[in-house]
Amino acid sequence: MPSTKHAAVMRDFNKPLVLEEIPAKSASEEEVLVRVGGTGICRTDLQMIDGYFQEYAPVKPPVVPGHEIAGWVEEIGSSVPEGIVEKGNLVVVSGGWGCGLCPYCKRGDDQICPNGRWPGFIGYNGGYSEFVSVPYRYLIKIDEKYKLKPEEIAPLTDAGLTTYRAVKKAKHNLGPGKSIGILGMGGLGHFAIQYAKILSSGSTILAFDRNDDKLDFAKQNGADHVINIRGKKSEDIRDEVNKATGRKEIDVVIDCIGAEEVIPMGFSLLAVGGTYVSSGLVGTQVKIPLFPFVAREYQYFGSFWGNYNDLREVMELAKKGSIISRVQKFSLSKVNDALDQLREGKILGRGVLIP
Amino acid sequence: MPSTKHAAVMRDFNKPLVLEEIPAKSASEEEVLVRVGGTGICRTDLQMIDGYFQEYAPVKPPVVPGHEIAGWVEEIGSSVPEGIVEKGNLVVVSGGWGCGLCPYCKRGDDQICPNGRWPGFIGYNGGYSEFVSVPYRYLIKIDEKYKLKPEEIAPLTDAGLTTYRAVKKAKHNLGPGKSIGILGMGGLGHFAIQYAKILSSGSTILAFDRNDDKLDFAKQNGADHVINIRGKKSEDIRDEVNKATGRKEIDVVIDCIGAEEVIPMGFSLLAVGGTYVSSGLVGTQVKIPLFPFVAREYQYFGSFWGNYNDLREVMELAKKGSIISRVQKFSLSKVNDALDQLREGKILGRGVLIP
Amino acid sequence: MPSTKHAAVMRDFNKPLVLEEIPAKSASEEEVLVRVGGTGICRTDLQMIDGYFQEYAPVKPPVVPGHEIAGWVEEIGSSVPEGIVEKGNLVVVSGGWGCGLCPYCKRGDDQICPNGRWPGFIGYNGGYSEFVSVPYRYLIKIDEKYKLKPEEIAPLTDAGLTTYRAVKKAKHNLGPGKSIGILGMGGLGHFAIQYAKILSSGSTILAFDRNDDKLDFAKQNGADHVINIRGKKSEDIRDEVNKATGRKEIDVVIDCIGAEEVIPMGFSLLAVGGTYVSSGLVGTQVKIPLFPFVAREYQYFGSFWGNYNDLREVMELAKKGSIISRVQKFSLSKVNDALDQLREGKILGRGVLIP
Amino acid sequence: MPSTKHAAVMRDFNKPLVLEEIPAKSASEEEVLVRVGGTGICRTDLQMIDGYFQEYAPVKPPVVPGHEIAGWVEEIGSSVPEGIVEKGNLVVVSGGWGCGLCPYCKRGDDQICPNGRWPGFIGYNGGYSEFVSVPYRYLIKIDEKYKLKPEEIAPLTDAGLTTYRAVKKAKHNLGPGKSIGILGMGGLGHFAIQYAKILSSGSTILAFDRNDDKLDFAKQNGADHVINIRGKKSEDIRDEVNKATGRKEIDVVIDCIGAEEVIPMGFSLLAVGGTYVSSGLVGTQVKIPLFPFVAREYQYFGSFWGNYNDLREVMELAKKGSIISRVQKFSLSKVNDALDQLREGKILGRGVLIP
Repeated sequence: MPSTKHAAVMRDFNKPLVLEEIPAKSASEEEVLVRVGGTGICRTDLQMIDGYFQEYAPVKPPVVPGHEIAGWVEEIGSSVPEGIVEKGNLVVVSGGWGCGLCPYCKRGDDQICPNGRWPGFIGYNGGYSEFVSVPYRYLIKIDEKYKLKPEEIAPLTDAGLTTYRAVKKAKHNLGPGKSIGILGMGGLGHFAIQYAKILSSGSTILAFDRNDDKLDFAKQNGADHVINIRGKKSEDIRDEVNKATGRKEIDVVIDCIGAEEVIPMGFSLLAVGGTYVSSGLVGTQVKIPLFPFVAREYQYFGSFWGNYNDLREVMELAKKGSIISRVQKFSLSKVNDALDQLREGKILGRGVLIP
Repeated sequence: MPSTKHAAVMRDFNKPLVLEEIPAKSASEEEVLVRVGGTGICRTDLQMIDGYFQEYAPVKPPVVPGHEIAGWVEEIGSSVPEGIVEKGNLVVVSGGWGCGLCPYCKRGDDQICPNGRWPGFIGYNGGYSEFVSVPYRYLIKIDEKYKLKPEEIAPLTDAGLTTYRAVKKAKHNLGPGKSIGILGMGGLGHFAIQYAKILSSGSTILAFDRNDDKLDFAKQNGADHVINIRGKKSEDIRDEVNKATGRKEIDVVIDCIGAEEVIPMGFSLLAVGGTYVSSGLVGTQVKIPLFPFVAREYQYFGSFWGNYNDLREVMELAKKGSIISRVQKFSLSKVNDALDQLREGKILGRGVLIP
Repeated sequence: MPSTKHAAVMRDFNKPLVLEEIPAKSASEEEVLVRVGGTGICRTDLQMIDGYFQEYAPVKPPVVPGHEIAGWVEEIGSSVPEGIVEKGNLVVVSGGWGCGLCPYCKRGDDQICPNGRWPGFIGYNGGYSEFVSVPYRYLIKIDEKYKLKPEEIAPLTDAGLTTYRAVKKAKHNLGPGKSIGILGMGGLGHFAIQYAKILSSGSTILAFDRNDDKLDFAKQNGADHVINIRGKKSEDIRDEVNKATGRKEIDVVIDCIGAEEVIPMGFSLLAVGGTYVSSGLVGTQVKIPLFPFVAREYQYFGSFWGNYNDLREVMELAKKGSIISRVQKFSLSKVNDALDQLREGKILGRGVLIP
Repeated sequence: MPSTKHAAVMRDFNKPLVLEEIPAKSASEEEVLVRVGGTGICRTDLQMIDGYFQEYAPVKPPVVPGHEIAGWVEEIGSSVPEGIVEKGNLVVVSGGWGCGLCPYCKRGDDQICPNGRWPGFIGYNGGYSEFVSVPYRYLIKIDEKYKLKPEEIAPLTDAGLTTYRAVKKAKHNLGPGKSIGILGMGGLGHFAIQYAKILSSGSTILAFDRNDDKLDFAKQNGADHVINIRGKKSEDIRDEVNKATGRKEIDVVIDCIGAEEVIPMGFSLLAVGGTYVSSGLVGTQVKIPLFPFVAREYQYFGSFWGNYNDLREVMELAKKGSIISRVQKFSLSKVNDALDQLREGKILGRGVLIP
């Protein structure tokens, strides 16, 4: 291992990242040093740089962003039990690291541990870097025989994980005769539409976006119907849903956007007893009417990232070739370009940094 | 049966009800004629008169309000199967009447049937009257031996049913070490606090209201802690929760108010993974911050009235004496006084009309 | 309607059925008279004739068997609400008819109502007949546009329904990385394997039978792996499971056989935390070891037929062409031949009578 | 810490334990050394000595038995994070220790980890000893202010935990109008009856045993009705259930015995849709009739010990004084006497060794 590593560092909010050489650390006791093969560029990285999270989870620069990480084992800490990983193994990183003892961690939901650390945000440097250190309990090893590439599987550790968990939360309300709509076909949504196909037990699947290219991808990867919502009002969209499915309403809506104006539109599509899952975080407020929420017995779930078992299940799908990452690659030196393109909605699928 | 009956009729929105003699109808085929023993006065009766529901479920005057009905069997329709009820039996009425064939009805949730009728609102006259006709499938017979009185059990068919269903929806998130808070100790909340005791599997129970008399009732009927929230900000209330329980947060909040400013306050009390159930309908909008909803994985359920099995379970508790109705009685001729008192928040527990 | 109808009647236990002309009845109040288009021949018809059920649910001859019924509306009773069905409509019959008021019926599970009637067994004549009377609440109308034939959809009302419900009961334990095994590829199992594909959220699917022809059908209709168990011991079968999937164990087993020696074999395949569902009824006893049941936290569900909503969901799959009935047709006059072939295990898929 | 400790050692199967002085070990990296304050004497200790588990989980003598452990922190390993425990803290031990990475461990169910270790059985010495070493992730600290004693809380880590988990598994089938029966009022059952009271949401509670003294304890600690089953047949017991509750059947049966003749008796009491939970392990076989299991849609769950969160919840109840241990104390030197008394059914509640 070299004594330094290249990394893209957030030195300040609202500024471009800075490319630096920073000291490389060896793997400490329970950690494994991972040579990064690919790191997904997430909208939340942008939001961190923009200060979005400061009210709730104060980030303190300098930070090396990047929480969607795949790579190869480089060094193994002294207390890592034998047989877990070997040097050279391809691994992905489960991102939310918990205290290990609270009721959330003890049920496996480390990603919502109130005392947790999130690599790339708080407590640990992330994957916009040549090497990262990861506690061995948060690694999943991927056998070589599956021929998976880091740039394909890195986005599965957040975009492809968050949406998996989101769709799973609605499974109880899916099945033959039911319908599920995915709002937004971007970095998150292009995965969600594929999970809808796999997890919805024969439901009818609808994709909503404002970009026809993204809707084409959806059509080819699971959507029974696609609806371009650019400039349309809720009532128009309900009419298009009706034209497509014979009902104006949808049983499950997975919101991969989270914009303030999208949320009430999404709820306006919901059938009696319907389920709405918010995983997108573009906006800051939920504003919806109370009476239908109560009288139609809506269920509304927040869904955040995913836990280790969720990621294990996602990787099982990846191994089978059941889930496809639409990826645009960038070298580490182009990180600020990539972030700009993401901000402008120009990336199709997920951008991935290759350090 | 006399050829006419007394009833209080809503002739127009935003006007006092009119006391009238209207023709009495015999029980038709599948119906049972019930001599009303007591009818609860619900805030939704007020809201109907005020036009609150017009946007969603258009009511057309004249209407005889009243959907919390207990009474005695007077006449039995010709197609009612033998052995269901006999003349003189004490019965309560399950209020939401569905089409019987849609997926909601076929799972027992007639009260959310999109093609349903609600006696006292739409499709059928209600219990502000000496007699009401009820399809036999919506009656529950109460054996004499339990010595229950119509005025005690009438409020259990909505106030005491809505809150039962609301607390039940949160049971998966309750148990030893968890806490549940009930917002509002009025017509709904004074029941909810009792269900919290019965259904929460050893959770810590908190009652929130602005009226000390109502909080006293709560303290005597299930609350481990009571907090008067009059004039207090969310942060203060969190501090009081902390003083009472050792944590600033609560795992489950049952909102029996639904006022626009109460909802974000209620959410501000919610622990990670917490469950919020809206059953109160005082306001019209939900406005809450998106990021904690997603990142803390909140669950938010609308809960509406209750179904036949819910009511059966409530009546089982009533038979055992496990659930107490706090009741203020009014004669039918005092109906407008009673509605005024309700509007002013002066009724302790539930007002009940005795025709 | 003619004044008589042809029917195959069980005049006595353990005897061939007798072809008779019996008086045809008009549709009474809430009933619809259905001209039978096809009736599935179920193993439970055989078992009824053999006296299998007498210990639990005494059948009293004469009985017209047949509970898997599809046909066309012939006459509509006077109290059937308008708009439900019209003469000539294709319909299927939901088979378990309940009291309508007990807790099971009120949650939609009429098929397990303790006071229920089962057409073709107890209380009502069945579909081995030209016409049957059915309460309108137990009919599902199938639009002409789907071009479905009675002989294809009749078996979906029991064989294709029982297995749907059985697989649904295990959904909580299925998903990527999990596996599901179906025991028996006969009348029940050839449907179960198809549901496994639709409902298992990406699980690996295994079919077990002693007949290679039936396993071929399974391979073409959902099974990832097929294992011929003829003459093999549990340990051998575990080895074959291992060869196929890389694990010796299976997370979910759906037993479409129920033979006494099959049940412990099936349990021996079950992984820790595994789910076993019994829907087959060939044998009479369950004999399994207690310690692994407890220490490995097995879950064991009995699953019986299906309810109206289950059948609605099955019909949604049929309309989409997602579920295929493998059918062998027999005229009503060949009913005893058909029963003999079933007894000898010679029917591939389901036998259907065409009256 | 002294250089040796006293312990009771199983040197061979089917022999009395041997009291020995064995070398005392210091706490290694992630471990905490606990000075034992009390260790429950479990029927499974007897069964281990008798060779009961050899078929499934081979135990290799010498073993120091004892898996129900409470005590005080004596030494803290060098890698235990700060703030978890301090010397002198009262702690209980969560007994099933998993690999930490498999799907069971990652959802918190370490006690069913296929690669797990069970202190007192396999992999680690247990609490029939002055000191035990415990990985810090399996400790729960109990604040002094609750004034709990080791001998009271030790039995809560298995007898009081196993039954908690068992009753929890049936919660979905409990509530007003339902009933729950506990079979056996011994070491397990005397806890189960208390949990039935706390967790059953207003169900009617029945206790079954052959010993009137044990039934008296049940009557005082949660049972609405007690039935002495000595020498009675299933039909008689059903009649007594009917006399007590007005129904011959029970919705939930928790089996704290597991004897071969008790299981079919328990199932004969079960209502349609009923839930049976096996936690007792006296016998080796389950033999029950298949038809009612299927046609009445029974649910049957194995329940094994409990996980960390379960134990946390049990300790919350203990802190509130909601759960009472009936305890008989024995000094370590009397261990063989205590085991003999247990074998003869003479211990009321739980025997506890005080080293």
